[in-house]
Amino acid sequence: MAHINVPEGVPGIRSLVMFRPETGQYLYELAQVLLRGESTLSEAERELIATYVSSRNNCFFCMSSHAAAARCLYGEEEALIVDEVLLDVQEAPISDKMKALLNIAGKVQISGKEVKPEDIADAAAGGATDREIHDAVLIAAAFCMFNRYVDGLASLTPADPEAYAEMGKRMVRGYVLPQPQQ
Amino acid sequence: MAHINVPEGVPGIRSLVMFRPETGQYLYELAQVLLRGESTLSEAERELIATYVSSRNNCFFCMSSHAAAARCLYGEEEALIVDEVLLDVQEAPISDKMKALLNIAGKVQISGKEVKPEDIADAAAGGATDREIHDAVLIAAAFCMFNRYVDGLASLTPADPEAYAEMGKRMVRGYVLPQPQQ
Repeated sequence: MAHINVPEGVPGIRSLVMFRPETGQYLYELAQVLLRGESTLSEAERELIATYVSSRNNCFFCMSSHAAAARCLYGEEEALIVDEVLLDVQEAPISDKMKALLNIAGKVQISGKEVKPEDIADAAAGGATDREIHDAVLIAAAFCMFNRYVDGLASLTPADPEAYAEMGKRMVRGYVLPQPQQ
Repeated sequence: MAHINVPEGVPGIRSLVMFRPETGQYLYELAQVLLRGESTLSEAERELIATYVSSRNNCFFCMSSHAAAARCLYGEEEALIVDEVLLDVQEAPISDKMKALLNIAGKVQISGKEVKPEDIADAAAGGATDREIHDAVLIAAAFCMFNRYVDGLASLTPADPEAYAEMGKRMVRGYVLPQPQQ
């Protein structure tokens, strides 16, 4: 049971933004522009960063739901990339640029101060632009917020993988604030 | 020097939101509704939570600027509360409710999973409502994002305390997205 009186049976962050839509509105708009807005990083790559950070924060709800979204976005043939990244970033079949951005995201998960000039230089050498580095840092930082919000209030976390597969499909269509329950 | 090419001479998060106003807009709107919107927690109390979490994340820029805002909001006679909380929450001259909310915020800073039912029960026993508990958790989570964003991109961090006193006065008036430089 969640720590506060949120709508029953609604999983994860949805229950929290229904409890407090005044803040939820901006949380969803931030996720939408970061993960679905115009970018030279694909939506799959951005969901992969979100998944990786959520995994490092041990947030089962965010990790499972964003992994499902990333798998949908990569498509059937490449869906295993997500699991390979969660297993070992360096061995995963992704670009050097993505490895460098995930390295930065992993450092941000610990602390912003962990990101060093050589991490930025590695990303630039892999072809990352300032805008891509900015977005990788902000996606990582934002999921350090979302993960803490979801777990800090003990929101409902389904155990059934099928529930996340359904969520992933919905998330691919975009982040839209749920309407309050009648 | 910041890790990416942000406007020169602009300190902290302002330089980052000027670089990327599409995301900056929602970051500022989130801060505005959480820290200045309608609430039964005073603006000073909410800035105190932001300051405490930023201190625990070792983010000098956010700690110093939000401490300055909190001191302005508490007013001259009570300004020292901020420093007393940073020294020792349990000994600080604040309500049991605020001690319990700061305890929750401190746990969120480590991980959402650190917040236990007994922490929530303590806050409720001190008179905290679900909405106040929600907001304390979300303020703490949001500053885990802001702190990582500011330090992860190595944004300009003034050393001069006077710079933060000025910032604090501006922040009391509200969080408004700065206009792009001409």
